[in-house]
Amino acid sequence: MKSHRKELWFEVPQRRGLVNITSQVEAALKESGIREGLCLVNAMHITASVFINDDESGLHADYERWLEKLAPENPHSQYAHNGAEDNADAHLKRTIMGREVVVAVTNGRLDFGPWEQIFYYELDGLRRKRALIKIIGE
Amino acid sequence: MKSHRKELWFEVPQRRGLVNITSQVEAALKESGIREGLCLVNAMHITASVFINDDESGLHADYERWLEKLAPENPHSQYAHNGAEDNADAHLKRTIMGREVVVAVTNGRLDFGPWEQIFYYELDGLRRKRALIKIIGE
Amino acid sequence: MKSHRKELWFEVPQRRGLVNITSQVEAALKESGIREGLCLVNAMHITASVFINDDESGLHADYERWLEKLAPENPHSQYAHNGAEDNADAHLKRTIMGREVVVAVTNGRLDFGPWEQIFYYELDGLRRKRALIKIIGE
Repeated sequence: MKSHRKELWFEVPQRRGLVNITSQVEAALKESGIREGLCLVNAMHITASVFINDDESGLHADYERWLEKLAPENPHSQYAHNGAEDNADAHLKRTIMGREVVVAVTNGRLDFGPWEQIFYYELDGLRRKRALIKIIGE
Repeated sequence: MKSHRKELWFEVPQRRGLVNITSQVEAALKESGIREGLCLVNAMHITASVFINDDESGLHADYERWLEKLAPENPHSQYAHNGAEDNADAHLKRTIMGREVVVAVTNGRLDFGPWEQIFYYELDGLRRKRALIKIIGE
Repeated sequence: MKSHRKELWFEVPQRRGLVNITSQVEAALKESGIREGLCLVNAMHITASVFINDDESGLHADYERWLEKLAPENPHSQYAHNGAEDNADAHLKRTIMGREVVVAVTNGRLDFGPWEQIFYYELDGLRRKRALIKIIGE
C-alpha cells in the first residue's frame, strides 16, 4: 500500500469565500502515483469546510444567503461561543457544509460524476489556514 | 491491496425519491472478495445524496417535509442558480443529507449497527443518474 | 495492509450529550500499530453522530440550541416517525451533525489541525449505544 500526504494553504481576504481546489487535488494524486484507492480531503480548521458541488457562481451566492439564514452571523451575542470569539456562526455553517470528502481513485484519476468539483469553503477568513489531502492505495 | 468499483444506476420517476441500496452494496462487497477494508458509496451527481439512516416510511416522509422547510423548492426565483436551472433547492437539500458514506468492512460484511441502511436520495429526478461504490482492502 | 477494529460503548444519562472521544481513538490507533492510512469513526446508531469540532462548552451549548431550532423535538406529533417512537428529531439532528468522520493517519498519529477533536453526540440517550473505529493502512 502506498500513501501520499499534502497540505493546501489558503489566505482568503474576506470573512467568507469559496476556492475550487479540484486541480490541486488532481495534482497531488498524480504526484502520489496511486492508481486505485481512496482520497480524503479535509479542512484542518473547524471554521472551514471541504465539500463537493457545482462550480456555478449563482449557486455559490445561494449558499451564502442560505447559510446566513440557517446560522446567522449577527447578532454575535446570540451565541455562547462568542465570549472571546466572534465566529460561532462559522462553526455552525461548517457543520452544515461538512468537514471532508472522500473520493474514489480509479485508474489514476478522481472518479467523479459529470459536475463534481471540490471546494474549500472559508467561513472565518483573513488568516492563513489549511486543508489536508491524504491518498492511500496502490 | 484489492479494490473493487461498481456503479448503480437509477431513474426515479418523480422529482424526489428514496431508494434503499443496502443489498446492492452488499452484493458489490461479495463480488469484491474483500474481507477487511473500507467501502465508499457516493452520489455521482450534485443533486442527489447517499446517506445512512432508518428504513421507516414515517421518517422518510419527515425528511421530505423537513428538507422542504430548510431549503424550499418554491418560489424558484429565490435562488440565483435558477436562471437556466430550476434545481437550486436540490443542491441545498443534498448538502444537508450529504454526498457519501464510508462503511467499515469486517469479516466480509458491512460492519453495521442494528438499524443502519444505505439510501440513495434522489432530489432532482426524472432522469438517469448514478451512485458509485468503491471498496478497498484485503 | 493492516486493519484494526474497535467499538466504543456509551450510556449517556440524558436525552442528549457530547462525549470527547479523541483520546480513545488515539489509543485504538496506537493498538493498531498502523503508521499511514485512514481512520473511520462512525456512530453505529441512527440517532447519534460522530463529528469533529472544537472542545469548547459555549459552542456545545450553541449546538444544542441551534439543533433544537432546526429540528425541534416538540411537539412529538409533528413527525410521522413518532407513532411508536418519540425520537424523530434525533434522526434529523444527527443528519445535520453527520454519521461519521474519516481522519488521515500519518506517522502513527491522527493527522489533525490545531483544534480538531472527535465527539460522539448522543441525541437519544438513556441507553447503551456504540461507535465504531476502523483503521486501515500499514
